[in-house]
Parts: sequence; structure tokens; C-alpha cells
Amino acid sequence: MLSPKIIVLSTGSELTAGRSQDTNSSWIANELFGMGFTVSKFMVLPDDPSILQEEIRTLAALSTKEQPVLIVMTGGLGPTEDDYTLEVTCKLTGVGSVESPIARKRIETIYKLRGRNFQEALQTAIRQISVPENSIILNNSVGIAPGFIVSLGENAYLSCMPGVPGEMTSMFQEELSPWISKNFSAQELHSGFRFIWWMSESQFQKEFISKEKTILSGKVIWGVAAKRGYIRVSFQSADRKAVNELLEKLDTVYGAKSTLDVFEELPKILTERKITVGTAESCTGGLIAKTLTDRAGSSAYFYGSIVSYDNSIKSGLLGVQQETLDTFGAVSKETAKEMAEGALIALKTDYTISVTGIAGPGGGTPEKKVGLVYFGIGQKNGSTEVQEHYFPFSRSSFREFAAHTGIYLLYNHLKRFT
Amino acid sequence: MLSPKIIVLSTGSELTAGRSQDTNSSWIANELFGMGFTVSKFMVLPDDPSILQEEIRTLAALSTKEQPVLIVMTGGLGPTEDDYTLEVTCKLTGVGSVESPIARKRIETIYKLRGRNFQEALQTAIRQISVPENSIILNNSVGIAPGFIVSLGENAYLSCMPGVPGEMTSMFQEELSPWISKNFSAQELHSGFRFIWWMSESQFQKEFISKEKTILSGKVIWGVAAKRGYIRVSFQSADRKAVNELLEKLDTVYGAKSTLDVFEELPKILTERKITVGTAESCTGGLIAKTLTDRAGSSAYFYGSIVSYDNSIKSGLLGVQQETLDTFGAVSKETAKEMAEGALIALKTDYTISVTGIAGPGGGTPEKKVGLVYFGIGQKNGSTEVQEHYFPFSRSSFREFAAHTGIYLLYNHLKRFT
Repeated sequence: MLSPKIIVLSTGSELTAGRSQDTNSSWIANELFGMGFTVSKFMVLPDDPSILQEEIRTLAALSTKEQPVLIVMTGGLGPTEDDYTLEVTCKLTGVGSVESPIARKRIETIYKLRGRNFQEALQTAIRQISVPENSIILNNSVGIAPGFIVSLGENAYLSCMPGVPGEMTSMFQEELSPWISKNFSAQELHSGFRFIWWMSESQFQKEFISKEKTILSGKVIWGVAAKRGYIRVSFQSADRKAVNELLEKLDTVYGAKSTLDVFEELPKILTERKITVGTAESCTGGLIAKTLTDRAGSSAYFYGSIVSYDNSIKSGLLGVQQETLDTFGAVSKETAKEMAEGALIALKTDYTISVTGIAGPGGGTPEKKVGLVYFGIGQKNGSTEVQEHYFPFSRSSFREFAAHTGIYLLYNHLKRFT
Repeated sequence: MLSPKIIVLSTGSELTAGRSQDTNSSWIANELFGMGFTVSKFMVLPDDPSILQEEIRTLAALSTKEQPVLIVMTGGLGPTEDDYTLEVTCKLTGVGSVESPIARKRIETIYKLRGRNFQEALQTAIRQISVPENSIILNNSVGIAPGFIVSLGENAYLSCMPGVPGEMTSMFQEELSPWISKNFSAQELHSGFRFIWWMSESQFQKEFISKEKTILSGKVIWGVAAKRGYIRVSFQSADRKAVNELLEKLDTVYGAKSTLDVFEELPKILTERKITVGTAESCTGGLIAKTLTDRAGSSAYFYGSIVSYDNSIKSGLLGVQQETLDTFGAVSKETAKEMAEGALIALKTDYTISVTGIAGPGGGTPEKKVGLVYFGIGQKNGSTEVQEHYFPFSRSSFREFAAHTGIYLLYNHLKRFT
């Protein structure tokens, strides 16, 4: 088995016109990486059959005896006039199209269940259930359109999946991924990552990466992605020990600022220890609560939130003293502390996260600049911890920095004190 | 002046490995579209100098006397070892690099302001302020690295900007966009769009698009993007009247379900009419509040929210009767109504949006399936409006459908009744 040159291709005029964002390519690349494959490039093309045909032909021509080409394409399999993937594939392979019997059965069942007039709707929907003759069919367990794999010449393969993320991701995992693993040789790579909090990419490169011999020698490949509030540092190597050594060093150098994925770890801790939480949010406007409830099962530990955007809610529902607001202001250590403590009473949880800050662009003063933010971690049996931070970025960045930091602070508190 | 073939190119191994998402290409394409230019394709490449060089050379070779090629590239201009854009550009053009005097001045000012040891940090940062000799410099008014434009052969141009979105967007608008408009010929296109609520792409194509002569004849180009809760339908044409006729027809056919961008329009209405709002959220976990506070100035109309994930918060803070919860359940018309009305009292706002539903994947029953959701629109002086919806999708889709629908329902209520 050979290691392929993989190109991830998306089609959609909505994409190249910038009206819609291609999230499929990233997702696919990430999955392939986990399987031990590397993607050579992404390409996004408009829904234009002649452009699609020419580009796919050019990509397929890159295959050699030593390195096959695998094109992983999404989009253009829907029922509308501007869906050309089937037509283009048939032209490239010189075959006609046939109906997938499984998809036919599925569409009949779905339309009956929906109670819609099957015969009328069929006219539009039927395009979706066809695949090129002699292709390998990729079944769609979520939507209607099946995907398919065809061979383009001797050592090039084109796989096509729908562009709807929910359909594509299931199809990839259930159908395409096993086929790829069976037919191509993957590299066994070990990888690991850490979040490093409140750190910039260039600072990190200077003070850590530039001194690591296993990285400078190319034995370990490193990557860094700047997120809001943290950078995600990853290492990959055929040598597991070298990766682990770097991860351990990160933990030593950065201490509590080096963490696993807190968005995965915090729910585990809360569930295991049967801890309940709630939030009192001002500048984040509910984003911490939203983030804490992103995953299923969060009702086990998340009770609720009071979003106190207006000061009347801070005093009315969270019991922040009017005197505190008058003396120290809504954006202050004192208010953050009273918000966290007020939320403990109002929400009746074991812990609370409070946040109050100046998201901007307006609202800053010489003393309290846009970007200033205070956090409180309140606990039923113990004193409230308060921290000051400064995130002088755009409004949406600021809000994500603040929401992520709030979640990190609770995680860190639970790691240290319980 | 000629109309160029435009390729938007992003570089970053984090992108092709799927660890980070390329949002720059979409943004650029959308801007170019607004300027009357169409993008031929997007390409995303890893940080590999030989791949970058080869692909850029291939793209430049596509230029003809009639159609110039313009490559709009982002990324690879940072201070780290894996930033190759400058090096590759110098190789492609056969020139050396020089420091941008403006960038040099800027970096000195910034480092002094930051109070950091300039000499020490300079070593890392200096790479960022160089540009190829004889290039057109694109100043960076947000960050450090300048961008540049070089000519590749007779009729091909490569423009390079940093990958950091905040730096790139300012540089594009202030520096690159005027240069493009001055040097290339744009098409004057008129465009317009509508949101159509709770509509599928294929249903819309069947019942609307397939009957429109100006679309079938190609006079008007249409596009549709499926969002969560609505589709965004857009029309473009050199003929303004044809676009307007289609928009008016959408409004006639779909009535209140055809709207402008409610996320822009609702804040306008609330601000103009001095209406205050709050939310009472269960399944959305604060996402409506977060969305309502995404934009600056939202404190003028948004007071706060009670996220009542646990039933104890629904009864404790929102005053939902225990009897209502016992008899009808937390996910019911009755609970949605009492949540909206309880929030009016607790938050003291003119209007409230309430939502309670089953986000899944667990928690469904034969009577109340995953995807069922109830909304309430409460008003200080008037009765509460309640609606039932069914969004049988993934957890994250469901939550976005529900949050968007909640905002739409308030918008629609205000349009109809005030």
C-alpha cells in the first residue's frame, strides 16, 4: 500500500463568493490527520462544471506510480440546478449514472414518514440518489444523497460526499474513512497537545521552541494555533517518547498555565465530583453559560445563569450593593466578587463564575480601558477568588477571551483546591 | 483595464492539518464581490516553501494578455520559523528583501509603549518588517508585519497580507482594496438578499426559483446558503430592476417569513423605539443573550437574561409554578409562557423571549421528541405569544435554530404589533 497525496476539494459558489464558510475541509483534514494521513492542499471552487472538470483532471494527473492521488470532495450533490458533482464525475469517467437502490429505499421511507406527496417531491429529489455507474457507493445515513468513489485513471481516486456537514461527517466516518484506511498506507504518528494560557505565538516560539533540540532537528514537528485566551501547541513525531518529553516540559515550565483541553476536562471533573455550577455574566452576555452547555449531559452540573448586562439586574437579582456599584463601579474587583457570591445564593450551586468587563469599542475611560475585565470564582464553602485581566482586543475577541478564561479559572481552581 | 482572474490563497500548516479554520478567504471573497470582482478559487497550502513556490508559479502562469492573474495571499508573514511568504516571494521574483521604514518606526514605537526590552525582542520581530525589494508596500495599521504586492511576470500579481484576521481586514480595506480598484476593471453588479425562515434549499428551488424567467434565462444569478433556522437567498444582476422585482416577489410569496437580516434590523428597532428586552433560556443556555449582545451598543436595549437550565431556576427565579412543571412538563407551551412572563417581572424589561426545548441527543420521549421546542414572547402591556417548533437536528444545530428563531419571533412581533 502506498501513501497518497490528498487534496480536499469543496465546491460551492456560495463559498467562493464569501457568503458561506467552508468548514468541511478543516474537519476532514483533522480526521485524516488522526488516521495518520497528511493533506497536501485545500481547494474551493465555484459551482461551474467546466472549471470543476478541468481542475479535477489536473489534480488526477499529478498521480505517479509511487504516489497515488486521492481527492476528497464535498458539495454539489444536492437536488438543485447548481449541483454538478455527479455530472462532472460521469464526464470524467465516461460512464452514465445509476440509482443507488439503498438511497431509493431510504428516500421512499423518509418521504412517507414526512407525509409529503412523494410523487410530486420525487421530481426534485431524484437527482440526489444517482451515482456514477461502477462506482463505490458511500451510503448517507443522515440525509438523502449518497456519495461515491470513482477511479480516475490508474492511480487517482475521486471521492464525493454531500456538503451538508451533518451528512458529510457521518458518511466520512462510517463509509469513506474505512475505505481509505483499507486502501492506503498511513504513517504511524504520535501526537499530543497542550493549551498554554494568555501566551502569544511569537513569545512562545522565542522562549520555548527555539531551545528544543528535538524540534530544531526536525524529529518532532510542532504546530501552534492562536485561540482566544490561549494557544494550542501540538507536537507530532514517530517517536512517542520525544513527544511526551516535550509535553512534560511544557507542564513544568508553564505550570498551571499549561492545561489539557479545559472544555473537555472541566465537564469530567464536575460530573465525577458531582459539583454544580452557575454563572453571573455581564460583558460576556451569556457566552460562558452557552459554552458550558454546548455538550450533551451538561444538565448534570450546570444549573443556570444570570446575565446581568444592566446594573439593575446586578443589584436586583445578584444582590450587588448599590454602594459597591457607586464606589468601585460595575467593572471592579468588588462587583465581580459580589456577583459571584450573589449567584451562589440565587442559583444555589456549589460554584459560580462571575465576569464583568469593558468589551468596547465604547465605554472605556483613562482609568478603566476597553479590555479590562474582572472574574470571580465563588464557592459555597469558602471565600471568593477574584482576578483582574486585560484583553485589549476587538469586541468579539474580548468576549471569547473572557468566556474561555472564566472556564479556565474554574478548572484551575478545582484542580488546585479540591 | 482588464478584469482579473482572482485566486485567494491561504498558507498555514495549522489550516491544512485541520487544527485551525481559514476564515480569511471567505471574508476577502465577500469584499471583492462587493467591489464587483469574482473569485475563481480558494487554495489553502501548508507552510512548505517548495510547495508554495511551485503552486504560486503555476497560478501565475495562467495569466494571459486578455486576463491578468491576481493572487491574494494571506499568512506566512509572522515572526516564526514556519513563516515562508517573504522568502518564497523573493525567490519567485529574484530579488532580495529590504526593511519597510514605516514598519520599522512602528515596531519601535510599539515596543517602547509596551515597555519591553526592545533589543532582545527585536531579534524575533525583525523578520516581520521586511518586504521584497521594489515591491508595493501594504502598511499594517493594526499589527507589525507589512504586506506587499509584487509582479510575477508580465500580467500576474501576487499580494501578500498577514494571516491575523484583524490585521488582514484593515490592510485589505485601507491598502489593497484601493490598489485593486485602481488597477483592474470591476463589473457593476446589483445585489440583494432576503432571509426565508424555516425553509429548505430544495423546497425553495422547487417552489420559487424554478418558475422565475429572469433566473432561468441567466439574467439574474441566484445563490442560497442554508443557515440555522433560515436560508439566505441572494440575487445579483447588472439589471437592478430585475433584482428588486425578485426581492419584492419573495416578500409577497413568503410574507412575514421573508425578512431582511434580523440580527441587524432588530437592534435598530429596539434602539429607535427605546424598547428594552431580556431573555429566559433553557435549552439554548444563554445563546440568545449572547447573540443579542454580540454587537456594540446592545446595552441600550438588552438588560439581561435568566438561564434556567435546571428546573429549580425556572421555579425559583422565573416563578414558573411547580404545578405547571408537574402537569405539562418543563418543555411545554405553558412553561414557555410562564418563563416569558416571569422574566418580565424579574428583569423589568418591555419584552422578553423565552425558550424551552429538548436539544438532545438524550432526553426525548415518544410524546416529546428531541428537537421539540417552545418559544414565548412576553410583553409588559399585553398577552404572551407562544409558538411550538420542531428542529430535529444535531445538538449544536438545534441550539442555533432555536436561538435564531427566538430573535426572529421578537423581530416579527415588533413588526406586526407596534
